[in-house]
Amino acid sequence: LEAIPSKSIARLAEQVLDTQRDTVFQYAPIGKYTGDPELRRELATHHGTSADRVFVTNGSLQALDLVAAHLLNPGDVVYVETPTYDRAVQVFERRGARVVGLPLESDGLDMAAVAARLDTEVPAFLYTIPDFQNPSGVTTSASKRRELVRLAALHEFSILEDIPYRELRYAGTAPPLLAELDTDDRVITIGSLSKVLSPGLRIGYAMGSPAVMSDLAALAEGTYLSPAPLSQAIAARCLADGLVRENVEQLRKLMAPRLEAAVEAVRTQLGDVLLTVPEGGYYVTVQLPVTTDEATFLDAARASGVGLTRGSAFYPDGTAPREGTVFLRLPFQAMEPDEFAAGIGRLASLVV
Amino acid sequence: LEAIPSKSIARLAEQVLDTQRDTVFQYAPIGKYTGDPELRRELATHHGTSADRVFVTNGSLQALDLVAAHLLNPGDVVYVETPTYDRAVQVFERRGARVVGLPLESDGLDMAAVAARLDTEVPAFLYTIPDFQNPSGVTTSASKRRELVRLAALHEFSILEDIPYRELRYAGTAPPLLAELDTDDRVITIGSLSKVLSPGLRIGYAMGSPAVMSDLAALAEGTYLSPAPLSQAIAARCLADGLVRENVEQLRKLMAPRLEAAVEAVRTQLGDVLLTVPEGGYYVTVQLPVTTDEATFLDAARASGVGLTRGSAFYPDGTAPREGTVFLRLPFQAMEPDEFAAGIGRLASLVV
Repeated sequence: LEAIPSKSIARLAEQVLDTQRDTVFQYAPIGKYTGDPELRRELATHHGTSADRVFVTNGSLQALDLVAAHLLNPGDVVYVETPTYDRAVQVFERRGARVVGLPLESDGLDMAAVAARLDTEVPAFLYTIPDFQNPSGVTTSASKRRELVRLAALHEFSILEDIPYRELRYAGTAPPLLAELDTDDRVITIGSLSKVLSPGLRIGYAMGSPAVMSDLAALAEGTYLSPAPLSQAIAARCLADGLVRENVEQLRKLMAPRLEAAVEAVRTQLGDVLLTVPEGGYYVTVQLPVTTDEATFLDAARASGVGLTRGSAFYPDGTAPREGTVFLRLPFQAMEPDEFAAGIGRLASLVV
Repeated sequence: LEAIPSKSIARLAEQVLDTQRDTVFQYAPIGKYTGDPELRRELATHHGTSADRVFVTNGSLQALDLVAAHLLNPGDVVYVETPTYDRAVQVFERRGARVVGLPLESDGLDMAAVAARLDTEVPAFLYTIPDFQNPSGVTTSASKRRELVRLAALHEFSILEDIPYRELRYAGTAPPLLAELDTDDRVITIGSLSKVLSPGLRIGYAMGSPAVMSDLAALAEGTYLSPAPLSQAIAARCLADGLVRENVEQLRKLMAPRLEAAVEAVRTQLGDVLLTVPEGGYYVTVQLPVTTDEATFLDAARASGVGLTRGSAFYPDGTAPREGTVFLRLPFQAMEPDEFAAGIGRLASLVV
């Protein structure tokens, strides 16, 4: 709740209702509708690209689904990071993909493993969350980003980069987007206003070549016609008014000390178990040595008052957390530092 | 524009922003989210069913897509009316169906053709728009509805009834919904607020057995999480406030004379070419004898100032309008009677 500027959004929404009510309750224009023109312009400005490279969707998961439907043919392979966002894997599988998980290191994919796999089979696309990855918190280094883009051009596959957390950077400097390194229009970037403005508006978007955006728009129109014009108009106004940028600043101030405290709490109470020290996002993650199995451990954690997502759910079929460990995604974003530390204390008592 | 009560919707939207802004900009609850509970209750009341039989979607086309994804296995057959809503056919085909078009008569499907086809192959589901069908304007009679439900139970297939126009009845009495005749939970009903309140809100819904609604919800959650809470809350308030019912009354008053005038204009200027005399909806349709082909005829119509949708687009692959005729869908809903009659006059001059 504290991360969503509801009052300001509501104020701008009322302006939209005053000035655009004859259009926002009407159908959006038909015929490869790529989104509200003003919203596309604002998103393009926000990301330093052009409006004809932006396509607006009902949330970013819907964008993943449309891109998968567009890029995949039966039997195609998709490379993903291991671990990765479980819903993305499910979307790709439902669209007929065989999902291949490749190991994620503390600075991005294991590039030797990627290269070796490419000798066997070239994917339709590689899916990456390059900034503060969900679930791991890992950010892919600039050099690995360059290498991924080079391999995509060489082997002729697409890259899907998903950047919901990118703007939530509390320290350090952002490496370039993969799209910025791409000279071949092989990268499609998926963004969202859910983490930086409001998840309830359900505004996601894809960015890439105008031809691909137009294909995605045709597919979207044949599936749900268009996102709600009202949500799009509100989002456009929030961007134009500077509310998104302002909210991101607020979030950075709110989250920076939480992240710092989370890292400190893990280090002092659990030891050297962090997968990486993230500079942003929502999660720190640990590979915690245990003598029991995941279900038993999570039951015990829950009994002590700490409810956590099943870490193995983030591992695609055929992959698993390291033997003798449980993979724990520890969300620090919605907790005061002392609450978080108390939770870590409870986990620590379970591994003694 | 005259059919959408924008000012009243905006007023109710402002109430939502005042009282629910802490929830409408947040994520909807996760875990088989079937829709805003208040909206589901209101839709249930509106249709005389129970809330656990209602599932809310991003517009009704999205509901068709989810139902198709849920019911279809590779190679499955779907029966449709010929002609039918072209976007529905595309949705079913994209979901892997082989679409079989069966002839539509002036009172619904040709039941002998349905029975004969069932001897060859049973569909996963039959898709029908039983009230004021798009494009034909045909309403399926009560006896044919009963027979369809009986055949579905006997041969164990599902029925998808799509009712966007049902409430736009300007004369006569409505036959029962297929769902009301169904004792076997084989019918899924797809509805929409687009024609009775606002297409911009993008509120569609499915109604059927709670188990199927829950399966659809899981699929939706894995595709786009949820429809925007704001749209849903506004729609709920518009239903609760009586705005939908009031708007339907307004629409009936507005449309009744337009329909009557449209039928009269066609009869006097084009002769006995009406497929049916509809008692509601948006369209009257004709099978017009021509000596030229469809493209040439439509070009000539356009040149004379009458832009019409290509009628053959409503015929699934392997079917076509009657030899020597063009099938014309004539939308009367957005035109004053004299405008409509003038357009028919221009068409008449082309067939002399």
